[in-house]
Amino acid sequence: MSELFVTNILGSSAAIPTSLRHTSAQLLQHHNRYFLLDCAEGSQMQLRRYGHPLMKIDHIFISHMHGDHYLGLPGLLFTFHLLGRDKELHVYSPPGMEEIIELQYRISQLRPSFEIRYHELLDGRQIIYSDDRLRVETLAMDHRIPTYGFLFKEQPAPRKIKKSSIRKYKIPIHQMGDIKAGKDYTDADGKVIPNAAITLDPPPPRSYAFCSDTAYTEQFLPQVRGVDLLYHEATFTHDKAVIAREKAHSTAREAATLASKAGAKELLIGHFSARYKELDALLEEAAAIFPRSKLAREGESHVIG
Amino acid sequence: MSELFVTNILGSSAAIPTSLRHTSAQLLQHHNRYFLLDCAEGSQMQLRRYGHPLMKIDHIFISHMHGDHYLGLPGLLFTFHLLGRDKELHVYSPPGMEEIIELQYRISQLRPSFEIRYHELLDGRQIIYSDDRLRVETLAMDHRIPTYGFLFKEQPAPRKIKKSSIRKYKIPIHQMGDIKAGKDYTDADGKVIPNAAITLDPPPPRSYAFCSDTAYTEQFLPQVRGVDLLYHEATFTHDKAVIAREKAHSTAREAATLASKAGAKELLIGHFSARYKELDALLEEAAAIFPRSKLAREGESHVIG
Repeated sequence: MSELFVTNILGSSAAIPTSLRHTSAQLLQHHNRYFLLDCAEGSQMQLRRYGHPLMKIDHIFISHMHGDHYLGLPGLLFTFHLLGRDKELHVYSPPGMEEIIELQYRISQLRPSFEIRYHELLDGRQIIYSDDRLRVETLAMDHRIPTYGFLFKEQPAPRKIKKSSIRKYKIPIHQMGDIKAGKDYTDADGKVIPNAAITLDPPPPRSYAFCSDTAYTEQFLPQVRGVDLLYHEATFTHDKAVIAREKAHSTAREAATLASKAGAKELLIGHFSARYKELDALLEEAAAIFPRSKLAREGESHVIG
Repeated sequence: MSELFVTNILGSSAAIPTSLRHTSAQLLQHHNRYFLLDCAEGSQMQLRRYGHPLMKIDHIFISHMHGDHYLGLPGLLFTFHLLGRDKELHVYSPPGMEEIIELQYRISQLRPSFEIRYHELLDGRQIIYSDDRLRVETLAMDHRIPTYGFLFKEQPAPRKIKKSSIRKYKIPIHQMGDIKAGKDYTDADGKVIPNAAITLDPPPPRSYAFCSDTAYTEQFLPQVRGVDLLYHEATFTHDKAVIAREKAHSTAREAATLASKAGAKELLIGHFSARYKELDALLEEAAAIFPRSKLAREGESHVIG
């Protein structure tokens, strides 16, 4: 059984929180690791409201320095401090976050109980995070200020050795690591058994792309080919395409077009303008082009892959 | 009938927002003027939730530069901008707010659609706001960083001329202003009628004092003698008096003692530590010393005077 890989929507409103929706934030969970994607005002309350494990978040990714994507960060950090956090915290963002946070620590005459490691995002495709299970790379967005999408991709899993082969060839435990990594097996008599004969393909790596905020751009498509779940902003319906372009946002139709071109398995749209009380029109517009479209509604979770 | 004078509680949690309570903010309404007292994370959502007229707020008072008292301000300003505000906005706070806000405007490459006038609070009793109906003066608090309470006091109302006197002495309209201001009346024959004989005392000016955060201090008592409603922080019950002192906060018993010494008409306690799920113990402790004690529960409104 594959490990849990799911994104939990904490907010999907553009610019202004409404009485129905909070602004941008998602909690991405991969197995036992938690990643916060954007951290708008109220994110810490949303995390608490939905019972997420606040203190397990060690990595926070901020797409860009507009308030509706980061204004919840100072409060979340303050809460981490008050809850006695001592693990270091990694914050990935365009330049400016360290200055904003550190100024507030200086003025409030507080020091956090834990270390904050600031990682400034730079143009060009960067791998900004990597562990044994997962890596994260930046995606080029096209917005009014420097903005980055994030592609979360599982590391290739080891090959699986067939149980029947272990018995048949009496494969010793100390050689299994090499075989899982793709090597052929040489038995006690010197006979070489090709790797393909004794192993199975692992499940393909799953991936999640988070693309917000951005005007329509195809720059990032080569990186997200075949992505399992593409989250793409869809601030407006296409009748507002002129406003969308002016503000460097996308329409639902554009998000769906990109999902289609990327060969994504599913599309999740969000970052809805406060003008839309009901979201049906946005979903219908996307689904007309890309049937496997879904709405990012807060409190809902979407399994990846 | 006197004009509406009421404080609306938007949040009364200390330090950390809980699933039950937001952090510090109140909307004070006097007739048709709206004053925001503290502006914690989520204040703009709380204003919206309770149907308050966001755009009528022209004056925001921040008690001190701890995050749980001001972190909602950048988001509220951003929302004002997006809603097209053009009226200037006044922000009163200890030093540092302008730097924090302006840094974020610079980094987000946004300029607000309206002018922000920053007023830095300084030590010593200051009258920081005054109009024809109301004035606001600072109160010295005793906290870990510079912190100010705020006393909102109605301007003395004009005296009321008795209707019977107007008829009896045939007082002309053009003299009524002077008489209301306290002057005696000289009639057409040169006869002087003493002011006291023809006027009634106006209703006494009503007042509201907002005191948070602070350790127990009596410094501000002379300014709030007889105040109609004293809001005072009561972060802890008195069994936590040692922690309260360490953190420069007050207990419910201390808040009640101050209300009693001030001769306040009513006490409103708030800024409750997240450790208290139920607030009964805090209220009981205060009421044992000062019976007219009330809890600041969010969503509730308290009429002043």
